[in-house]
Amino acid sequence: MKLNKQLLLKQRPTGLPDKDTWKIIETNLPQPEEGEFLVKSEYISLDPAMRGWLNDTKSYIAPVQINEVMRAGGVGEIISSRNPEFYVGDHVYGQTGVQQYVVTDGKGYHKVDPTLAPLPIYTGTLGMTGMTAYFGILEVGELQEGDAVLVSGAAGAVGSVVGQIAKIKNCKVIGIAGGTDKCKYLVDELGFDGAIDYKNDDIRAKLKDYFPKGIDVYFDNVGGEILDLALGRLALHARIVICGAISQYNNTSPVKGPSNYLALLVNRASMKGMVVFDYAKDYGKASMQMGQWIREGKLKSKEDIYEGIENFYETFLRLFSGEKLGKLVLKVSED
Amino acid sequence: MKLNKQLLLKQRPTGLPDKDTWKIIETNLPQPEEGEFLVKSEYISLDPAMRGWLNDTKSYIAPVQINEVMRAGGVGEIISSRNPEFYVGDHVYGQTGVQQYVVTDGKGYHKVDPTLAPLPIYTGTLGMTGMTAYFGILEVGELQEGDAVLVSGAAGAVGSVVGQIAKIKNCKVIGIAGGTDKCKYLVDELGFDGAIDYKNDDIRAKLKDYFPKGIDVYFDNVGGEILDLALGRLALHARIVICGAISQYNNTSPVKGPSNYLALLVNRASMKGMVVFDYAKDYGKASMQMGQWIREGKLKSKEDIYEGIENFYETFLRLFSGEKLGKLVLKVSED
Repeated sequence: MKLNKQLLLKQRPTGLPDKDTWKIIETNLPQPEEGEFLVKSEYISLDPAMRGWLNDTKSYIAPVQINEVMRAGGVGEIISSRNPEFYVGDHVYGQTGVQQYVVTDGKGYHKVDPTLAPLPIYTGTLGMTGMTAYFGILEVGELQEGDAVLVSGAAGAVGSVVGQIAKIKNCKVIGIAGGTDKCKYLVDELGFDGAIDYKNDDIRAKLKDYFPKGIDVYFDNVGGEILDLALGRLALHARIVICGAISQYNNTSPVKGPSNYLALLVNRASMKGMVVFDYAKDYGKASMQMGQWIREGKLKSKEDIYEGIENFYETFLRLFSGEKLGKLVLKVSED
Repeated sequence: MKLNKQLLLKQRPTGLPDKDTWKIIETNLPQPEEGEFLVKSEYISLDPAMRGWLNDTKSYIAPVQINEVMRAGGVGEIISSRNPEFYVGDHVYGQTGVQQYVVTDGKGYHKVDPTLAPLPIYTGTLGMTGMTAYFGILEVGELQEGDAVLVSGAAGAVGSVVGQIAKIKNCKVIGIAGGTDKCKYLVDELGFDGAIDYKNDDIRAKLKDYFPKGIDVYFDNVGGEILDLALGRLALHARIVICGAISQYNNTSPVKGPSNYLALLVNRASMKGMVVFDYAKDYGKASMQMGQWIREGKLKSKEDIYEGIENFYETFLRLFSGEKLGKLVLKVSED
């Protein structure tokens, strides 16, 4: 008899999650009631935002509860259905959670086509990650052709797509990433105009070189000191998109606020937060556009895939250690 | 023979300006060349932004130079003219500087009508202060009818006008000010819905009481801890207008950044800086509207007027000590 391996939140972490944050259990396979279907999950998406869901604080989404299956987006195949709109053999994306099987009424799920793109891409560039990049840079960042664009976390899942979209829109794009390999990847493989290695470069000096007339759009995934340095180099009417602050998510001390924020005043600039769910009604349009760019070879999608729910804990930490390239994905199916 | 009393920047201050920041000299009256006119200045405007002009740093306007007349807006009467568009007896507003007489070619000057409103109002509610409030809350803050609005520095020149405009637009308006008298003034005289005394109240608790559904627009004149507390109480899609940060202008340590800035992300909110000069082309329209509100009794203008260039230094400090109510004005004419 098949069992369902599930990863639960055991206790809330302080700082970085550790092994005691989670526990893995095995339960019987759930069975769909009328109107429901059973998904065999194949790949789940690992994202920095998940760290926020572990905190018991008011946010844009309720925290994961203790002993609840850890929330995660995932893609898989329907193996049993009592829902007239979803058939056995359909592939779907939805909030599967960190587990191997899930029963759902289909709310928040949509079908994906594994013949158009490999399944893991639907957790990344053609999933929430890609949507975040698309709406973040184009709508929140109000990107204009010719803008000088800075992206932090640029070798990451969101950042790498943001930078490529800005290149497609004929912008000058500079990425910030950690290490020579990642910086080389940005320029040589993704076509960025330049890269700053935050581990080795003098960021302030590089920003001055790359942005003689200032930054028009800064897409911020990291917060902390880099946000402050970017604020110090804004052009008039610059837009800062606050997508995340990975440098601060595991803080045990208070978040470091951007002490250069008065640059917003001097430059009549704006800093705006975003949550991708607000753009749900336009996901379809955006996915089609992104799919077309991928087919045309203008947009490269890179997934870094690990395997096994047992390895969730260590794989998750790669989000924060920087030991990954592109979209972090965990394969949870076992056969 | 008449002399022109002028206040010059003697040396750049660290922290709060002191007596050694300035020096006063007397010079012969300047005479207009062809195309110029001579203004006898009556009242000058004292504004927190002037503190920023003393720093030798890149900003939205060049710093005042050592031994230069201190920059200031002022209103006065033309007593001699060789400019065909400006006549003796006309009253004008412009960047007169902190002095009793000034010669100008008229660039940046406009005429004002002392029969419509007393002259000091043209340095405040019908001057740059009023324009800052008008464009700040209506355009940058994208004010909507029914919004829940928070204003800091609410008993000050800009804040008091911001709050009144928001009331005219049928919003709920809460002001933050220092001391019982100012708070009483906001509610009893200006019609605010409530006031928070930052010197005596528990600001966090009061914000919770006054904004059960969160703040839609926060107009920030002060920065510092109050900005952080407001960030902690935002409604979805809130707008923060960064107009100033009076709590930080005389810092000798680095500016305190808003450590709650990730509330922008959670609430899909924005924080936007403004400089009033960007709206120059619409000053006329705004002045007419403000004048009408004043005549209709909907908008009250309060000026706190001191006298004498000799008293500039001590009067200027009232901007930061909070020992003033409404618009701070210095009468510089002596007869």
